[in-house]
Amino acid sequence: MNSNKSTGCILIGGTGYGAKEFLRLASFHPEIEIIQIISKSASDTPVSSSHPELEGIYSLSFEKEPDFEKLKNHSHRFIVLALPHGESVNFVAEYEEKVRSLNIHIIDLSGDFRLKDHNEREQWYGPLSDNISKACYERFTFGLTELDRASIKKATHIANPGCYATAAILAIAPISNSFKLQSIVVDGKSGSSGGGKNPSQAFHHPELHSNAFSYKALDHRHEPEIIDHASIDKDCSFMFVPHVIPLSRGMLVTCYFQLVEEISAEDIHATFERYYQESPFVRIRKNPPQIRQVAGSNFCDLHITVRNKQVVVTSCIDNLIKGMAGQAIQNINCIADLDETTGLLFPGLGVV
Amino acid sequence: MNSNKSTGCILIGGTGYGAKEFLRLASFHPEIEIIQIISKSASDTPVSSSHPELEGIYSLSFEKEPDFEKLKNHSHRFIVLALPHGESVNFVAEYEEKVRSLNIHIIDLSGDFRLKDHNEREQWYGPLSDNISKACYERFTFGLTELDRASIKKATHIANPGCYATAAILAIAPISNSFKLQSIVVDGKSGSSGGGKNPSQAFHHPELHSNAFSYKALDHRHEPEIIDHASIDKDCSFMFVPHVIPLSRGMLVTCYFQLVEEISAEDIHATFERYYQESPFVRIRKNPPQIRQVAGSNFCDLHITVRNKQVVVTSCIDNLIKGMAGQAIQNINCIADLDETTGLLFPGLGVV
Amino acid sequence: MNSNKSTGCILIGGTGYGAKEFLRLASFHPEIEIIQIISKSASDTPVSSSHPELEGIYSLSFEKEPDFEKLKNHSHRFIVLALPHGESVNFVAEYEEKVRSLNIHIIDLSGDFRLKDHNEREQWYGPLSDNISKACYERFTFGLTELDRASIKKATHIANPGCYATAAILAIAPISNSFKLQSIVVDGKSGSSGGGKNPSQAFHHPELHSNAFSYKALDHRHEPEIIDHASIDKDCSFMFVPHVIPLSRGMLVTCYFQLVEEISAEDIHATFERYYQESPFVRIRKNPPQIRQVAGSNFCDLHITVRNKQVVVTSCIDNLIKGMAGQAIQNINCIADLDETTGLLFPGLGVV
Amino acid sequence: MNSNKSTGCILIGGTGYGAKEFLRLASFHPEIEIIQIISKSASDTPVSSSHPELEGIYSLSFEKEPDFEKLKNHSHRFIVLALPHGESVNFVAEYEEKVRSLNIHIIDLSGDFRLKDHNEREQWYGPLSDNISKACYERFTFGLTELDRASIKKATHIANPGCYATAAILAIAPISNSFKLQSIVVDGKSGSSGGGKNPSQAFHHPELHSNAFSYKALDHRHEPEIIDHASIDKDCSFMFVPHVIPLSRGMLVTCYFQLVEEISAEDIHATFERYYQESPFVRIRKNPPQIRQVAGSNFCDLHITVRNKQVVVTSCIDNLIKGMAGQAIQNINCIADLDETTGLLFPGLGVV
Repeated sequence: MNSNKSTGCILIGGTGYGAKEFLRLASFHPEIEIIQIISKSASDTPVSSSHPELEGIYSLSFEKEPDFEKLKNHSHRFIVLALPHGESVNFVAEYEEKVRSLNIHIIDLSGDFRLKDHNEREQWYGPLSDNISKACYERFTFGLTELDRASIKKATHIANPGCYATAAILAIAPISNSFKLQSIVVDGKSGSSGGGKNPSQAFHHPELHSNAFSYKALDHRHEPEIIDHASIDKDCSFMFVPHVIPLSRGMLVTCYFQLVEEISAEDIHATFERYYQESPFVRIRKNPPQIRQVAGSNFCDLHITVRNKQVVVTSCIDNLIKGMAGQAIQNINCIADLDETTGLLFPGLGVV
Repeated sequence: MNSNKSTGCILIGGTGYGAKEFLRLASFHPEIEIIQIISKSASDTPVSSSHPELEGIYSLSFEKEPDFEKLKNHSHRFIVLALPHGESVNFVAEYEEKVRSLNIHIIDLSGDFRLKDHNEREQWYGPLSDNISKACYERFTFGLTELDRASIKKATHIANPGCYATAAILAIAPISNSFKLQSIVVDGKSGSSGGGKNPSQAFHHPELHSNAFSYKALDHRHEPEIIDHASIDKDCSFMFVPHVIPLSRGMLVTCYFQLVEEISAEDIHATFERYYQESPFVRIRKNPPQIRQVAGSNFCDLHITVRNKQVVVTSCIDNLIKGMAGQAIQNINCIADLDETTGLLFPGLGVV
Repeated sequence: MNSNKSTGCILIGGTGYGAKEFLRLASFHPEIEIIQIISKSASDTPVSSSHPELEGIYSLSFEKEPDFEKLKNHSHRFIVLALPHGESVNFVAEYEEKVRSLNIHIIDLSGDFRLKDHNEREQWYGPLSDNISKACYERFTFGLTELDRASIKKATHIANPGCYATAAILAIAPISNSFKLQSIVVDGKSGSSGGGKNPSQAFHHPELHSNAFSYKALDHRHEPEIIDHASIDKDCSFMFVPHVIPLSRGMLVTCYFQLVEEISAEDIHATFERYYQESPFVRIRKNPPQIRQVAGSNFCDLHITVRNKQVVVTSCIDNLIKGMAGQAIQNINCIADLDETTGLLFPGLGVV
Repeated sequence: MNSNKSTGCILIGGTGYGAKEFLRLASFHPEIEIIQIISKSASDTPVSSSHPELEGIYSLSFEKEPDFEKLKNHSHRFIVLALPHGESVNFVAEYEEKVRSLNIHIIDLSGDFRLKDHNEREQWYGPLSDNISKACYERFTFGLTELDRASIKKATHIANPGCYATAAILAIAPISNSFKLQSIVVDGKSGSSGGGKNPSQAFHHPELHSNAFSYKALDHRHEPEIIDHASIDKDCSFMFVPHVIPLSRGMLVTCYFQLVEEISAEDIHATFERYYQESPFVRIRKNPPQIRQVAGSNFCDLHITVRNKQVVVTSCIDNLIKGMAGQAIQNINCIADLDETTGLLFPGLGVV
């Protein structure tokens, strides 16, 4: 690791897929240096014992406690929280004061700080910790760069978006911000890595291989996240059903819109082109996007079909990159005054 | 093969997946005897050279021309057409008179005779062959047993349903026949065998593995088939987008309904239970259905979620069995006065 | 279930993949009736709650204790043990006397009784239970039908072979019994269902998908089982390494032989044809066997390549059928004086 | 593209997987600039129309003819041949003189120049083109960096190794160079991308999914390549059988060695550690390597098991990277006086 890098980073929670992917991407980012990796459960073991693919890349071991002072030599300072939902809020409650005093930015990969509305937040993630103030909670900015680049550049605390929410909001926002909608249906199809690293019966290989199923129909917490951040009217009917499909990395979301008035294909394409004209990671494709074309990349590929008042937008991302760790780095780039694409402009694998 | 079986069958078109699956299922059906298998392209080669898994099961070779007289000794006589769309209609035009004179039933696996409306038929499958009469066309009954068992029992010509249409109609019909609907969205997810046996770039393993994509959004010919046979009102908005997911056998269809009036979960469950009370192959499940639980079987598994005026029904079938060859046998059973489940009541693989 | 069936069966241990597969195959066997399914952990719950694919097929619930008297009305009586290694031997120790007095046959799917040599047995499966006599242990016949049909027909206790052992022994035995060998290498490639139903990190879908690895190299307990039952000379070098490949059902084993003397392709093919002339489930193929051609069937497909003193035999089976539950039924057929193929002569899926 | 990069490159043959992967890796290499991409079949179309994942990364179109003069401004000049076997030799015959006069290095990804022995070359790849001289043929150095770094640094023409050969030679060379061997068996398991981009029945997704098979047993042209370059004695028995397993990217090779004399695990580990002490891309692992840990990386992971005179080495690579395009870049790095790891030290995907 090169100590001349401008941007120092401590990773909190190091054993899950989000942490692994963040470390993987950070390893070839020209300006990010990983200073510490914290894991209580795995402390004092080499990072490569949890993530064998990182052997020869990282020689660090997990540590028990963060030492924020170690970020002092870097112009830009970050902690990235790769903790389970519910643990991030506790960590922030405990350390926020210290962190702010050292001018350290927080990027939280969990869902704890994503919902604007406190009632909805309580409904989906449980009550706020006693130890955290509403003021702290409100310091978090929703970190989907393409929606509000300006706010992110000024933010100190980032709530990194959920993977389904990312794919869906990028498909919906150009429409919901420009046209009157009667209803939206979002059908999400995710690879299995979205379910996390802990083994379970439903994700046991002999049972998920060659299989697919829906889960939490009309009851998934990315639903309010999408409605919130895609600015969907209360009187627009909204349904979201996620599914697991038998691949590991990547996600395809199909969004069905019923508009109040008829629209032309030209108009809607122009709307998308305009909305994303400064967004290098959104590609509006002539052909339906394929997971293999974004897997391993930070791109979100979109495709639009129009028929009278009906519009269908399909959206593909790598759930671990644009849907998680790549988005975190994109946010770091914005905040650290780097070009938004620094260390992120690699193509999808094509063959996965 | 045992010549005491009641039901004789000539298979027309023997090299595709539909033919293979029909032969596979027929091989352990107690009353069906395969008399001939016709393939112009593969004539005089053993069936097992095209379908190596049938070695030791069938010793027949493909023949060039059908000899309908060979069915004479069977009480129930069938030809099953496993030809590409467009070729079935030509076959029927050429042979129908002969076939009718011998009291032979036709089961057509293609889409040629599925659409009731001639304009729609022309739009999706091209103009009717000059050689076929409207009368002949109208002799075909849509062969989804669960919709109209009585008509099928009396039918001489069966248009076997498409796979997406089967999964979707079974999810939609109980609702569309009982409740006023504002809109329906059908999101289909199919295994790759639905694309047929001919190799192509999109279905090349290195590119479909770990991949998924939509195709023919709002432009698939199962859309009019679903609308026709699920009795969907003209003023109900309808969208259908099919997708390919990276498995081979099986299909999951998610149907989203916006109702005009609120409905209770009890009411809608009761509606489904009533609708399918005499249908042994439809299972209404407590948990979302999984492809692995129907793959290798003739079952269609359904699951219902309700929220105010919104209903979601997920539907799983094996596209090659309930979506094709198993449905054909179910129709044969009905017409040949056998129990509907004869030779078909085997469970899904569970582990695929 | 039809009480006129000749062969009654109680299944001990009902929740694993072996049990599920046995129940699946038994459901369409014309002469086997399942009388009870015993599971201590799941007792009093419906079988279909553990195995959702069996809903509509079995209405039985798991029971806590077997009632062997219930087999009295059947001409042929079996208990099938689908217990973990180590539990079968305890079950047999407890119940064998009772079982023998009722003229009930035991088919054990575990490895507990497979090794002839007591030292080897101890080394791989731990010491014999205090409660079991050597006499009882020696009553078990290794149940690979193709090796010794005559002994199996007379056997009262069957040790059903392991899946790797089945695929390997069927590839090796014709050679090891006819030619002098210098060395054998067995490279096994198994689908993930071979690892059983319990979730684990190595079999977590996001990690096994698109992955493959070896395990227990030169240290797997099917190695002595193969050496024992394929009659391999002590002075022939033997290496076996199993691998997991990313599919669920099926197995491919590649066997490499170094012969002491040169052999012709004709000689070796003739040897195999002769060895398996009465074995309907072994197919000697012109092309290398493929897992998809045996998956879902009880066939073992073999292919032979010869170059001077070198021979390669590839062997494919469905690990859950010919490698477990199908083999158990084949043994039941033999013992119950049924045709060996009864209820088992269905083809592989071809498209899986 | 940044014209300050030191190393210019023209890619000949742009539409296959090798080309795509080379372009993908080159896109984030700090010193390689792609000057032209030549494809006769796709000339004048954008590169991203053949490789949609490269949209937003490359704006180049395919060109019909190379213009070698365009490399003049770069200190280091390369053409990379991503042509089918048999076409590379023709290209070299036509252009070699011109290319040498401009001090341009050739990296050939095909098998045309890999075999040292002319008879063997003729046997496996057909007779030498009339237009190519033996002298030209002999200018090619086998480009497996870890075997002979010094020769590669001085080479002008590189024959880039085959994927199986890479994985096998790296597993075999430390042993074959240090110990007397009686026999070697190499069992190769490759993902489907190794079969190239052209669709075929065997690689049609519905038939390769959940499938595996061997091919060209004892008859694959990587066999002489391995024997040649791993310095295997003529009197050592050698067998190689490749297999396709149902994943797309990555390869696992299992090598079985019968030694003449017994060896200790310590000795053999020490031999490997010594052999690869200066090779950053070879990792000797404590646990059996997994494809997912090298997929997407240039690493080769090895694992060793010893039992008396028997040794097993398993070896994993990404067939498209270390087995092709990454190896090409590693060779470019060596020749262009860059650190061997430049642009290549990224970790495997871990979750694929």
